[in-house]
Formats: sequence, C-alpha cells, structure tokens
Amino acid sequence: MKSRAAFQGELGAFSQVAARRLAGDGFVPVPMPTFEEVFVSVVNGKCHCAVIPIENTLHGSVHENYDHLLKYQLAIRGEAFVRIVHNLIAPPGVTFRKIQRVYSHPVALNQCRKFFEENPQIERTSFYDTAGSVKMVMENKLADAAAIASAEAAQIYSAKILRKSIEDDRENFTRFFLLEKPKPGKPNYPKFNAGTKYKTTVAFTTRNIPGALFRSLSAFALRDINLTKIESRPLRGKPWEYLFYLDFIGHVEDPVCRNALNHLAELADMLRVPGCYPAAE
Amino acid sequence: MKSRAAFQGELGAFSQVAARRLAGDGFVPVPMPTFEEVFVSVVNGKCHCAVIPIENTLHGSVHENYDHLLKYQLAIRGEAFVRIVHNLIAPPGVTFRKIQRVYSHPVALNQCRKFFEENPQIERTSFYDTAGSVKMVMENKLADAAAIASAEAAQIYSAKILRKSIEDDRENFTRFFLLEKPKPGKPNYPKFNAGTKYKTTVAFTTRNIPGALFRSLSAFALRDINLTKIESRPLRGKPWEYLFYLDFIGHVEDPVCRNALNHLAELADMLRVPGCYPAAE
Repeated sequence: MKSRAAFQGELGAFSQVAARRLAGDGFVPVPMPTFEEVFVSVVNGKCHCAVIPIENTLHGSVHENYDHLLKYQLAIRGEAFVRIVHNLIAPPGVTFRKIQRVYSHPVALNQCRKFFEENPQIERTSFYDTAGSVKMVMENKLADAAAIASAEAAQIYSAKILRKSIEDDRENFTRFFLLEKPKPGKPNYPKFNAGTKYKTTVAFTTRNIPGALFRSLSAFALRDINLTKIESRPLRGKPWEYLFYLDFIGHVEDPVCRNALNHLAELADMLRVPGCYPAAE
Repeated sequence: MKSRAAFQGELGAFSQVAARRLAGDGFVPVPMPTFEEVFVSVVNGKCHCAVIPIENTLHGSVHENYDHLLKYQLAIRGEAFVRIVHNLIAPPGVTFRKIQRVYSHPVALNQCRKFFEENPQIERTSFYDTAGSVKMVMENKLADAAAIASAEAAQIYSAKILRKSIEDDRENFTRFFLLEKPKPGKPNYPKFNAGTKYKTTVAFTTRNIPGALFRSLSAFALRDINLTKIESRPLRGKPWEYLFYLDFIGHVEDPVCRNALNHLAELADMLRVPGCYPAAE
C-alpha cells in the first residue's frame, strides 16, 4: 500500500513539493483545507504521515503549526528546506499580452511586487490558495487571466508557465516537517549514527522567575550545543507566560545532548521532545 | 488641536478601546484599513500617534507589527492590556430569537465556540472586522442578524447588546503599544522616576555562533533584570538567522539597565531600543 501523505492546500501546493522530498516518490498526496485537518488525519490513521510548513525565511514561523505540534503530539521524522519559486502560469493558448488579471494567495502576490510594478496593466486578485488559483483559471478556461504558483501546480493542472521565478526575493525558503504518529513503546527517532547530522526539537515551560530562560539555555550553551531556533508561544490560561520551542543540532542519544536534556528537565516545569531527525542541508 | 490617533480597523475596534486608555479622552480616532497604513500615517505626520496590538494571550504576537516597529522606527510611548470581551450585538428591535446569522471576524467567531454550540440554529458568518460587522448589520438594517464585537462598537453604531461576554476564555487579553514619531535630539522616553515601574523594548541581532543568544541574555540575567518577553523574527536576506526582541522591567537611565544595555551592545551586531515606557499593570 502506498503511503498517504496529508498536506494543507490544493494539489500542487509547495507542501506537496516538500512531501515528495520527505515521503519519497511513492506517496499518495492527500490535500486538506486546514492545518488542523492535516494533523487530525494522521492522529485518526486516515493518513500515514503529514507534511507541514513550520517557518519561512521572509515571514517567520507558522505559529498555528507549533500549537498543533503540542496538541496532537505527532513525532517529527524529518525536515526539508524548499525554495519558494513563484511562476506565472496560464491556460495553454493564453499569451502574456492577453493577461489582464493574475490570481494567487495574497502572500504570493505580495512576494511578486516588482512584477506587478513592471506590468501595471495587470490587476492583482487575491485567491485562497496558490495551486488552487491555477486549478481555477484552468477549470474556467479563462482567456485573459493567469495564476502565480509552483511549477508542480502548472504540471498537475496541465497549464503553461509563461514567466519563471517572478518572486522579488530569492532568499525565500520554507522549512517543512514530516510528521508521523508516534509508535507506543518504540523510540520515535532514528538510531544514532555518529557520522550523521541530526536536529532535535524540544518544547518546555519554566517557572516565571527572573533568569529562568537564561538558565534553561545554559543546559545547551555550557555544553557547546548549537541552537538553531527559539520560538515562544503564549501559555493558555496563564496570561503573559510562555512556552518555548528550541531546535538544536544533535541526537537525543548522543551523551552530550542527553546530559543537556536531563539538565533542562531539572529546570523546566514541562519538557517534551516532539522530534529528533536528520538535519536538512 | 486634538491629538489624532491612528489604529487598524473600523471605529469601535478593540484598538480604539486601547487608544482611549493610552491617548486619553481628547483624541480623535482615525481608523485605517491596514497596520502598515497606521505606521505610515505617523511617519508622514498625518496622525500624532498610533495604537497597535502587539500580542494576545491566546494567539501570541502580532508579528507583522514587530516587523513594522523596526522598519518605521517609531518610539513606543506606552503599553496597555485590554481584556477582549465579545458581545452579541444587533440592531434595535431585533430580539435574540429572530437571529439566524452572526457576523464577525473569524478569530472572534472562533473565540465564541461555546455560544455557537449552545445555539446551533445560528449560522456563523465570517466578516473582515469585528466593529465593521456591527456597522454592516446596522447600515443594512438586518432583521435576522447580529454581530460580535466590543461594547464600544455597539455604542458607536447605536446598536443593542443582546448578550454580554460570550467569549469562551476570559483569559483573553491583548497588549497594545502607543507609538509616536521620535523627536530628533530629544530623549524618547520619560524621565526616570525611581518610584515608577518601567518596561524597555530592545531589538538586536547576534553573530550566528553557538551560545550567542545565551550570552546576550546573560547581560540581563547576571544583573537580576526580569525579562517579560522574547520574540524572534527572521532576518531578511540571511536565511535561518534571526532578530530578537526583548522586553525587560526597567528604565534605560537606571544604572543597572544602562550597564546591561552596554553589555548587550558589546555582544550584539545590531542593537536598537524602540521604547522605554511606564509598565501597564
């Protein structure tokens, strides 16, 4: 049976590009309308895995997904960095000169401002999804419209790429996580191999006292463990207190990291390890 | 001349409630469609000040506004915590039994789930703004519809509150900043008064080396200065590097805080102080 991989968006979304890289070619892409449904589909076994965006180099973290990670307790099995390349995509036969309107998600439209400044005759029109906008211009056989989306979306809906890579900023990358349901009684991480670079994601809360976060970070800094990300999220029911997510380079079975996690456990009120996985380059 | 205070949303938005508290009764509320226009209106002198939400106890930070703070370099002059109370509001004469649809911003609708579960006959309908939904049901004289918004919005549009405080979670607070244009050559903070509690907001970047954030926090922890918030935002053009925002209790002219800031300046690549202001209770 092929592995079913859930992701948010329409077929051809950037999450599907990430899913191909993380879940392999053999997976069946299962598009879903919301991130919450993506998580639930893995919890209830309808899908084998999920691929979700967790942060973008221009926009920052996808905070909703940080909250779902803790709520649904799926295990992070891998990460991938995907460069976000926006293409101008139209139905076959529609030439660039004919285009009067371009549909896409507002974030994608905003990432192609130079294109719209250089082509003031073209109207920007917000749509709920990037790949969905390709689907729509194709289904409606629009003769004067185009969409902005991934090359994957052009291929899936048999549309034509009229302009490649029209985004303003080429340093536009999204980090995706591959998630699976944890297997009870089994380790939720790959076997430690000294030659492989791993990343570990932890979530913790501290007592609300001066220096609490500083002491928590000391568990890593005093052992020369490299943190790659810190994220704070509000704690429900405790106004102005926070939960922290940290990513560090290392494997939970590496003795230095194990000591750091034991040290952090001494200091933290709550500590969870959502994942330990091979680091993407 | 009355002080013009810009805020995002329609008249009656929660930002206007915060503006009354921060800018005083004498201000003229100036509603704007986007946060960016709010910042620009103060930069170009069309408004004297702005009131913006910066974080909420359920949803976390308003990241867009963190980015605008650095881009537009306005000075933070004050903060206020506003409890978000959602009310069911209808045109006069519309009774609860007549209501078939309720309009509001999707976030507000989601914060009143219990109300909709207990009243399954009522349909939830997304609208672009909470106060704007009150304006709309009044202007269209809808006989079977209501809105969810602040008590302020009910008053402004002469609508009637049918149910008070229908939000699920009472620990729902938003923190707002009062912003002004910095005056060149003058200090952008109140004179230090040892009897007053102040908060200072700083923004900084560090070199991307192990322990950099830990050492930055040491500037505060080693001086027993209490941090109340840390936020990380992506650095444009440097994928997977971050800019940090910290809030701490103290005044920039308090010698202990001044030493901490000098210490942080030694460690940071970039350091800015967007504001030092009386702390809200």
